[in-house]
Amino acid sequence: MNATPAVTRPLAEWISSLKPSDLSDEVRAAGVRTFLNWLGCAVGGARHETVDRALAAVTLFSGPEQASVIGRTERLDVMHAALINGISSHVLDYDDTHLKTIIHPAGPVASAILAVAEHRPVSGEDFLAAQIVGVEVACRIGNAVYPDHYDRGWHITGTTGVFGAAAAVSRLLGLDAERTTWALGIAATQASGLREMFGTMCKSFHPGRAAQNGAMAAYLAEAGFDSSLRSIEAPRGFATVLSTKQDYAEILDGLGTRWEASLNSYKPYACGIVIHPTIDGCCQLRDELGADVARIESVALRTHPLVLELTGKTRPQTGLEGKFSVFHAAATALLRGDGSPTAFTDEVVRAPDIIALRDKVRAETDRSVHEDAVHITVTLTDGRRIEKSVAHAIGSLDRPLTDAELEKKFVDQSALVIGEARSRDLLAAAWTLPGLADVGSLARLSQTEAAAGRGAA
Amino acid sequence: MNATPAVTRPLAEWISSLKPSDLSDEVRAAGVRTFLNWLGCAVGGARHETVDRALAAVTLFSGPEQASVIGRTERLDVMHAALINGISSHVLDYDDTHLKTIIHPAGPVASAILAVAEHRPVSGEDFLAAQIVGVEVACRIGNAVYPDHYDRGWHITGTTGVFGAAAAVSRLLGLDAERTTWALGIAATQASGLREMFGTMCKSFHPGRAAQNGAMAAYLAEAGFDSSLRSIEAPRGFATVLSTKQDYAEILDGLGTRWEASLNSYKPYACGIVIHPTIDGCCQLRDELGADVARIESVALRTHPLVLELTGKTRPQTGLEGKFSVFHAAATALLRGDGSPTAFTDEVVRAPDIIALRDKVRAETDRSVHEDAVHITVTLTDGRRIEKSVAHAIGSLDRPLTDAELEKKFVDQSALVIGEARSRDLLAAAWTLPGLADVGSLARLSQTEAAAGRGAA
Repeated sequence: MNATPAVTRPLAEWISSLKPSDLSDEVRAAGVRTFLNWLGCAVGGARHETVDRALAAVTLFSGPEQASVIGRTERLDVMHAALINGISSHVLDYDDTHLKTIIHPAGPVASAILAVAEHRPVSGEDFLAAQIVGVEVACRIGNAVYPDHYDRGWHITGTTGVFGAAAAVSRLLGLDAERTTWALGIAATQASGLREMFGTMCKSFHPGRAAQNGAMAAYLAEAGFDSSLRSIEAPRGFATVLSTKQDYAEILDGLGTRWEASLNSYKPYACGIVIHPTIDGCCQLRDELGADVARIESVALRTHPLVLELTGKTRPQTGLEGKFSVFHAAATALLRGDGSPTAFTDEVVRAPDIIALRDKVRAETDRSVHEDAVHITVTLTDGRRIEKSVAHAIGSLDRPLTDAELEKKFVDQSALVIGEARSRDLLAAAWTLPGLADVGSLARLSQTEAAAGRGAA
Repeated sequence: MNATPAVTRPLAEWISSLKPSDLSDEVRAAGVRTFLNWLGCAVGGARHETVDRALAAVTLFSGPEQASVIGRTERLDVMHAALINGISSHVLDYDDTHLKTIIHPAGPVASAILAVAEHRPVSGEDFLAAQIVGVEVACRIGNAVYPDHYDRGWHITGTTGVFGAAAAVSRLLGLDAERTTWALGIAATQASGLREMFGTMCKSFHPGRAAQNGAMAAYLAEAGFDSSLRSIEAPRGFATVLSTKQDYAEILDGLGTRWEASLNSYKPYACGIVIHPTIDGCCQLRDELGADVARIESVALRTHPLVLELTGKTRPQTGLEGKFSVFHAAATALLRGDGSPTAFTDEVVRAPDIIALRDKVRAETDRSVHEDAVHITVTLTDGRRIEKSVAHAIGSLDRPLTDAELEKKFVDQSALVIGEARSRDLLAAAWTLPGLADVGSLARLSQTEAAAGRGAA
């Protein structure tokens, strides 16, 4: 019955024993980019009404003011800060993506450890190692069960993110291998998040709750709260109960030498990654068409079936729904050259010119087109046809955002929330992460003036 | 794609529109028994080390002292009180059971609403209606997916309990049908709890977290945090993602006329329900054998296969593991006539006389034996054989505990924690639930002296 070799315990041993000095410069540098992208997104999303509403509900129950709500004035207890920051970082659908699994790993992991770091001071070196380990754990568990797990309907960012958060916080608490194993078990039994929630506020709730639940798992384990020692691989463990595929080699093979955490990518557009080739191609077409954009008769997309499965909403009514409409995204890219958060507001989704063009967009599916590609044909009213093929969207591993593009993305979105001066200060500070004595200072620096002043007092 | 008729929304309409006066006296009376049994268990379990450790972890993050930790001195915010009380009420495996699904429904539901009731005062009439509705929702959703869902490895008490807690708290907050639908959605996307955790502290974590998460779902919905409107029945909703069986008629048919909440049962023994026939039979055999108990050569059990699947541990090492060993349970029943919490301590599990008899117990499975039955053959050293068949264990729907037996169970376990005088006061108060002006008073009355004095001040 227990024929499966141990998975959870060896993983926990690796989590608890890795030293920051074991990390190569390359892995560290990738980790800093992950952190910086996450922080920009968390600030950028901080004023979204999804965050307002979550805060309105939880503030009543929050404990001591231990940690900052990023990009705002409020301070909450560690767990609630992890929840809210996880929501903020994902609410614009602008965060990082582990392309092999479509996991957005930083939300659960970084939201958990930054909140903890404000309460138990952590050096940049230890923080970075914890983040990298947490991202690695989430992505490797994801590899073990993807795509079956995702196809069944699980939002893999939440279900694997809770393990990543538990692993990362276990490191910050200095848990030994046994307690880290328990923390992974307490995470496993909270793994949740349904894809049915896409297009509602609950989608960004998933990484937030994964951050909170993973962090709590580590604190419970620290207090001696025990759990299964085989929570991932047992016959009734995570991988079998939540997936038909269990490739455990993906979890353990090459730990510490082959890094999934270095395969993270950063979106240039604030929506589901499968729409990115379309936006990329439509932005290019807009530049080529010039004034002819006004003469578009029809737009034909040829895409992988997953694109329509995930983002096939033909008549989105809200900004959130717009993120799940390749038709809306094509229209905003062609008419406004925009795939940033401002392309996915309620106003833009309801704008008559956008709706008019959106309704001229058709899509056909073709399994021979890669998920990362698209073929676009624009037909003008005078009969001319312009074609555009995108083989790899900008932001993919083949065309990663440069550091300068990451910086622009950071400032473009965060300046709208905390002002450009503070945004640039925060950006500069984020690059210094590996050498910081106290990472919590970054969270406080992200806050808007009122709280930042209070935090410094 | 959306061919399934609506389930979640009609359920939410029923939840939000039912009036306490719609409940028959019989349904109310059953609800009071459910509450009383739950309260006794929550007090009885309050000093378990599982609770100590959970409290040690969460206290650091708890908000204002809004609600009582039942049977102790601490006060926590509503959400953490719901968590801890849910753990306490299940930790002795002594709580209620909806036999059709093996759901323990009161833990998630009552733990959530009693904590809320201390913060937003609630009358006994409204509280009882909320509890009955919450239990009904959890059990009906359970019926829709049981047994496939449970067989896959889900701890159904946690996965359906979160809906029950969300439904019950939605009523206390006065949410309309739309917001109640959201609350059910926020619950659905947190449905979790693996059977792999049985025998560890995480098992009782499940009803606790379900109480907390369900309550939070309702508060989030109240604040306008939206969710899917079809979280149960959508192609990627709860029932399809977490089960291969989806019998939606079980959720909606006869709502308000046929009551699952009235099919709740109460355990005479502090362990998994499938062992109860064995304990019942062995206690009867003990009475018949007298001094011959010391001459037992072997004990042969013939049971349904599920009994060994759930409780087949042959060499339990801890009290918790003892609850999952039909062999240990047979030994304590034969040697001590005990199936109460004192039969499942670390000490008793390790007692030499218990181990010696435990190792003489053998079990064979027989699908023709009902899950609620057992056939026991005791062979003595002189060759005599004594047989005992139990068709329905005490505590089952065919032999329910009387009110007097429920009272004895309440006092026996709670007096050990809060003393007999307070236990009897609390019992008397619990019977008056339907007429109480402020149900929160019961939670405060359950606390040990130090806090009770403070609460009254």
